[in-house]
Amino acid sequence: MSDAAKTEYRELRGQAARLAVMSDSERNAMLCRLADALEADRETVFAANREDVLAAEEASLSDALVHRLVLDERKLASAVEGVRSVARLSCPLGLVRERRLLDEGLVLERVTYPIGVIGMIFEARPDALIQIVSLCLKSGNGIILKGGKEASRTNSALVSIIRKTLDGAPWLKLLSSHSDVDEMLGMEGDVDLIIPRGSNAFVRYVMQHTNIPVMGHADGICSVYVDESADIDLAVRVAVDSKVQYPAACNAVETVLVHQAAAPFFIPAFTKALAAHGVIIHADEKALSIIGKDSPDVVRAVEEDFHTEYLGLELALKVVCSFDKAVAHIASHSSHHTDAIITSSEEHKKRFFDEVDSADVFCNCSTRFADGFRFGLGAEVGISTSKLHARGPVGLDGLTTTKWLLSGSGQIVDDYSSGRRKFIHKDLEI
Amino acid sequence: MSDAAKTEYRELRGQAARLAVMSDSERNAMLCRLADALEADRETVFAANREDVLAAEEASLSDALVHRLVLDERKLASAVEGVRSVARLSCPLGLVRERRLLDEGLVLERVTYPIGVIGMIFEARPDALIQIVSLCLKSGNGIILKGGKEASRTNSALVSIIRKTLDGAPWLKLLSSHSDVDEMLGMEGDVDLIIPRGSNAFVRYVMQHTNIPVMGHADGICSVYVDESADIDLAVRVAVDSKVQYPAACNAVETVLVHQAAAPFFIPAFTKALAAHGVIIHADEKALSIIGKDSPDVVRAVEEDFHTEYLGLELALKVVCSFDKAVAHIASHSSHHTDAIITSSEEHKKRFFDEVDSADVFCNCSTRFADGFRFGLGAEVGISTSKLHARGPVGLDGLTTTKWLLSGSGQIVDDYSSGRRKFIHKDLEI
Repeated sequence: MSDAAKTEYRELRGQAARLAVMSDSERNAMLCRLADALEADRETVFAANREDVLAAEEASLSDALVHRLVLDERKLASAVEGVRSVARLSCPLGLVRERRLLDEGLVLERVTYPIGVIGMIFEARPDALIQIVSLCLKSGNGIILKGGKEASRTNSALVSIIRKTLDGAPWLKLLSSHSDVDEMLGMEGDVDLIIPRGSNAFVRYVMQHTNIPVMGHADGICSVYVDESADIDLAVRVAVDSKVQYPAACNAVETVLVHQAAAPFFIPAFTKALAAHGVIIHADEKALSIIGKDSPDVVRAVEEDFHTEYLGLELALKVVCSFDKAVAHIASHSSHHTDAIITSSEEHKKRFFDEVDSADVFCNCSTRFADGFRFGLGAEVGISTSKLHARGPVGLDGLTTTKWLLSGSGQIVDDYSSGRRKFIHKDLEI
Repeated sequence: MSDAAKTEYRELRGQAARLAVMSDSERNAMLCRLADALEADRETVFAANREDVLAAEEASLSDALVHRLVLDERKLASAVEGVRSVARLSCPLGLVRERRLLDEGLVLERVTYPIGVIGMIFEARPDALIQIVSLCLKSGNGIILKGGKEASRTNSALVSIIRKTLDGAPWLKLLSSHSDVDEMLGMEGDVDLIIPRGSNAFVRYVMQHTNIPVMGHADGICSVYVDESADIDLAVRVAVDSKVQYPAACNAVETVLVHQAAAPFFIPAFTKALAAHGVIIHADEKALSIIGKDSPDVVRAVEEDFHTEYLGLELALKVVCSFDKAVAHIASHSSHHTDAIITSSEEHKKRFFDEVDSADVFCNCSTRFADGFRFGLGAEVGISTSKLHARGPVGLDGLTTTKWLLSGSGQIVDDYSSGRRKFIHKDLEI
């Protein structure tokens, strides 16, 4: 690590601290200025984006990637509306989570503060940059951004507007190369949290190459379990939406489990609905016996299929003989991201909620609801499958930490150790 | 990793899951049975402990270590009372942290659950085993314990009582060797969190040799800053307690900073009080000019002294020319554990609380209050200087995670993406 780089990271932390002690209304005013500037300067952004898109097409990058790369009127308007809606969210800082009278004149509080400096590595979509910057600005965190290489011109144009509008935005650093990322991964103590978004291999690379805490998820192997008592029409509608509404998303279903009693009713209707969307089914032996082995779009499942994140119009289908077998399958195969049960049984719903150890556990609705905006968090910086700190979609709350603040009037511990004074430990109203 | 070990860890997770779905009153009954059994079988424990103590004395281990190793009537009674008080704490599981109506018939909740399996590595004190087991049992977590080698006979006796009393306690595993610890550090996916307590070097070793999240702290370089407006008597009393009440603790003060305007009044009184306790002072140039260079117990400070955790009757003393310089010194030298200001200025108190980025930030009271019991958490498994998840003293709350539970009635995302339905996003009463 060069000394110059260390100094630059330290300086960024200092600037983040200045952002943190501003008032919420100051930060909101910055967000509103940013929204206005993005609208006013949109032609600059579109011009830069057209260059990125042209270069991507010339390099024959995939249609899906080019699609994510495009920043047009509609996507920018939606991103700008996102910035304004983040400004309208209540302030995540200075919230008192606990307040306790330890003794007369000795009051303990646990209060929210920004985490500090967040390193964010994201994919092709340049509108994600706008969403991430607005969440970090609102929560008073410094930010180190590394966007996709394909979007570099668009990202630079966006950062220029941010710097021009927000007094240079010294709390923001834009990285441009892979070696910059490696440098950041070594900045333990100067970067507090890294949030990588991208391919599984990339997220794993980040996790293995840094001592800085990493929040996010590698795999999204989500399942829908159709219980014995499921409403079959509802099950088909929900399971189909969980797959086809946006198959490339991490919260799309990859494995559908069906109770053997529901299978003869669910599987024919489900496979018919999937066929209309061109979904390939990897079916286990029992499911195959119901579907019929010569159905198009159906292949015999191998064990590996139940550990696969297809991210496309494909899924694995398995018949289980009991609720317990479904829960056990999820325990050993799920990536603990999002798992859903379709059931009419309140008891099975409760047991599924208690026994499935995943970030998001759903009943009778699509796995695709696992998303910060849909959850009402305003927006998200990502989805965490870690059990520590933030779990599931991560919004403003996940970008804060707390401090314990103790206000006294000269209290010393010796008085309590010796028994001269006793603690009161009374919770006070927040 | 041997397959047998993997299987054993998986089995432990299954047993922890069974503990997690018990009711709070079942777990409390187990805690009460454990407290009774520890009292009834105390002679067995004392006999094992006498052997450990004898062996430690024969091996000429330090007095401080032997002192921590001894488990006598008084310490056991206090540990047993601790078990009963943990049973009286309210249940940390099943708490609804957020509840939101996403749309008619679509309700989102964020609910607390156990983290899963906790690996706990602790030092010589065998009473810590009792505290850790009771916190993990209360919070429904499986536990892997590794105690100090010196305490192995006492720890085995305690675990025998636990197993005899609590149906074999299959959710508990006691490790005995260093290679067991290395094995545990490799059990990513089977152990959710590791909490190491011990020397700085050991905690760093653990952090560098596992991909499992680690919670705890390596250093405890805590400071007390005596502000310009400090009440001098109060400052002396608090600063002395912060050092001498238990100098080996991680929350004992190591550096005292004094504003230059307070220095001529504070330093003579402070050095006099410290002299009575035999504390060695590493004083900077300005402090030395007030103390007088030929005072006994005073040495000239070098920069390294302000980065040193003495853990004994020694401290570093520095005169600063402003509040800002004190905050800057803490930012670059503190281990972000516990830092205190002594001041009569409400403005400086607020700025210190906001600007000092440590787990515990105190005003006008001893740094020694940084402790789970004193904070009213009932007990603690350790103190975390991480900014993620739990920060500061970690009690039951830090041993839980949350899941997002979404209950629907057939909702699909396509209805919302297409605009056919709109989210309500109304927070409901908890």
